[in-house]
Amino acid sequence: MEQSARAAVGGELTELARELDERDPLSGVRAEFELDPEIAYLDGNSLGPPPRTVAPRMAEVVREQWAGRLIRSWPEGWWDAPVRVGGRIARLVGAAQGQVVACDSTSVNLFKVMVAALRLNPERNEILLDGNTFPTDGYIADSVARMMGATVRRVPVPEMGAAAGPRTAAALINHVDYLSGRLHDMPGLTAELRAAGALGVWDLCHSVGAVPVELDESEVDLAVGCTYKFLNGGPGSPAFVYVARRWQDRFDQPLSGWGGHRDPFAMAPSYTAGEGIDRARSGTPDILSLLALDAALDVWDGVELSSVRAKGLALGDFFLRCLDELLPGTEVLTPRDSARGHQISIAWPDAETAMTTLIRRGVIGDFRPPGVLRFGLAPLHTRYSDVLRAVCALQELAGNGR
Amino acid sequence: MEQSARAAVGGELTELARELDERDPLSGVRAEFELDPEIAYLDGNSLGPPPRTVAPRMAEVVREQWAGRLIRSWPEGWWDAPVRVGGRIARLVGAAQGQVVACDSTSVNLFKVMVAALRLNPERNEILLDGNTFPTDGYIADSVARMMGATVRRVPVPEMGAAAGPRTAAALINHVDYLSGRLHDMPGLTAELRAAGALGVWDLCHSVGAVPVELDESEVDLAVGCTYKFLNGGPGSPAFVYVARRWQDRFDQPLSGWGGHRDPFAMAPSYTAGEGIDRARSGTPDILSLLALDAALDVWDGVELSSVRAKGLALGDFFLRCLDELLPGTEVLTPRDSARGHQISIAWPDAETAMTTLIRRGVIGDFRPPGVLRFGLAPLHTRYSDVLRAVCALQELAGNGR
Repeated sequence: MEQSARAAVGGELTELARELDERDPLSGVRAEFELDPEIAYLDGNSLGPPPRTVAPRMAEVVREQWAGRLIRSWPEGWWDAPVRVGGRIARLVGAAQGQVVACDSTSVNLFKVMVAALRLNPERNEILLDGNTFPTDGYIADSVARMMGATVRRVPVPEMGAAAGPRTAAALINHVDYLSGRLHDMPGLTAELRAAGALGVWDLCHSVGAVPVELDESEVDLAVGCTYKFLNGGPGSPAFVYVARRWQDRFDQPLSGWGGHRDPFAMAPSYTAGEGIDRARSGTPDILSLLALDAALDVWDGVELSSVRAKGLALGDFFLRCLDELLPGTEVLTPRDSARGHQISIAWPDAETAMTTLIRRGVIGDFRPPGVLRFGLAPLHTRYSDVLRAVCALQELAGNGR
Repeated sequence: MEQSARAAVGGELTELARELDERDPLSGVRAEFELDPEIAYLDGNSLGPPPRTVAPRMAEVVREQWAGRLIRSWPEGWWDAPVRVGGRIARLVGAAQGQVVACDSTSVNLFKVMVAALRLNPERNEILLDGNTFPTDGYIADSVARMMGATVRRVPVPEMGAAAGPRTAAALINHVDYLSGRLHDMPGLTAELRAAGALGVWDLCHSVGAVPVELDESEVDLAVGCTYKFLNGGPGSPAFVYVARRWQDRFDQPLSGWGGHRDPFAMAPSYTAGEGIDRARSGTPDILSLLALDAALDVWDGVELSSVRAKGLALGDFFLRCLDELLPGTEVLTPRDSARGHQISIAWPDAETAMTTLIRRGVIGDFRPPGVLRFGLAPLHTRYSDVLRAVCALQELAGNGR
């Protein structure tokens, strides 16, 4: 396509982006975030921006709960905060109450659930690992295997059901692939694993708050996820653990700190695991971060999850259309059908330099080795005009010597 | 003593408390905390009050770093925050730089260091455990032993050196006993353990920010501690890990998340432990809590640690004198000599009810089973008049039916 024809196409896309933004039923939610309107923020899949509720809530927590009530706040809502905040996340992952707790980091929670999974399946000693897993999952799986006398086998996710054998205790799968954005079939894979006698453990980091997650309906066994991406909980905010109710009585995790004890303040010399999901806790809960996350979750009140998914797919479709029209031939790593999360990943030579240039021009995405640019599409705050601006910036970059 | 004579004694003590407060070289530091002047807060050994720097810093972090710089903040100070904040704690525990990292909870860090300790001493498989340990240390030691094929033996701390045998890999000791406030001999016990071929692992939760801690000089091997007591980092604020430099190359901890990887953003498929203390990290650091802690540590700038210790002992001496004069015969669990931390613990029937009454009267301490009232003496904010008020309230309580 000639330069001028592209410019004409660009003009049509500008008009389309404007219309899509105007018609967006979620457009009002963006105002609930502190987010510079001049920036096209396409990295909500890495770090969500702060909801406006967070800063005042933090000030209130410090002043009224910490300074004002001091240790009296522990029984007045602090000690139970992990389960209460977990209960708010439950709605977003299709879990009935009492199965989600917010605590610790994803890596730490992965260690808990993977050890527990092996203990739930004690005749078996193999972990199947998502062949393209986010690295920390693999590091933790390897560490768990080393401590438990198990082995780890990396398998492409679609082949996992077939790969699960008589030694397979559990499979650890990223619901949405961090690199490509591919969405895996949670109910189908979980059923295949169950048929093979293995537990399905899902990492929801790149799916929670984006695609529909139906843990109960999918009969998932165990899951973990973070809250700093599409849930906007803040950098490194507490992660969460899901333990299906049917496993809770036998859920036996190794980070058995006093936070998971049945009666923590009895100061008993030996550990007795708490009832229900409480036993997935470990040490003293980190209240400032938990209550920042709690405040951040307010933006989800009244938001229909189906409209979040619809917009996430529409933003992706629009991204792909912009690419097709303005940068045809770009290698897109993200599936074009709906088997994708809320990001578009493209192959790009020297992705790091390219992203540095984009960020300087006000388009914030990120890059991952080898040579991948990622653009997150967070339906609560991403605009169609942000998408177009990103692709126009890529087009300009390509014109300047790609 | 007759009631009237006691009242006279009380009057003298009131005058003495006033004088001691006036002459207190640390009295100015109290103004740096948000703390109701009407309350006698004697629970800084459980939860320090918020330094005034915390709330505005949190607002600044949310607005300028999180909302303003978004993911660009990760390389601009967030990713390194655990080691940078750990470096500030290092001064308070007598550690040269590069040996302390702030991250995770104490329970989680205990798991890391106890597994690492067993791996550093692979021919041995016994853990000696402080016979009166804070419970979570025991729960974690038991869990580590179960996973590592080791055993746990509880020993009174003073006997640990003699108890360490050819199977003893490591001993886990609370520097200051949470219940009695007893201070254990760190350099002496560490040397005895080393002579027996065992590693000394110290839990500093009740000593950091109170008594002098000289980890390097005491040739301690490994240590953990929390930051929400005498360091005032906030409820459940990040804990810390100390790994002596001589062990760092061989420090092999099981929560090997990407935060501890040598090159986390290379997204390598297998784990390579980071250089130095970085390898004690696990998942993504919790930035809001870490930077709240960072702000809270500002109150230590310019504070002489020797004057903190001097005042902590003086507050304790004054507490004991008030008890002797106003409530003679009270059973004091805390050593009367200087082998104590900054708390006074006394035996009291129905301690829970007693503390509820004291708190209603504006005297905040806490209770621990069985039948122990604890009063923390935090030199940065505790006043001698708070101490007297607590003992007077106890006296009144005793008069009402003890």
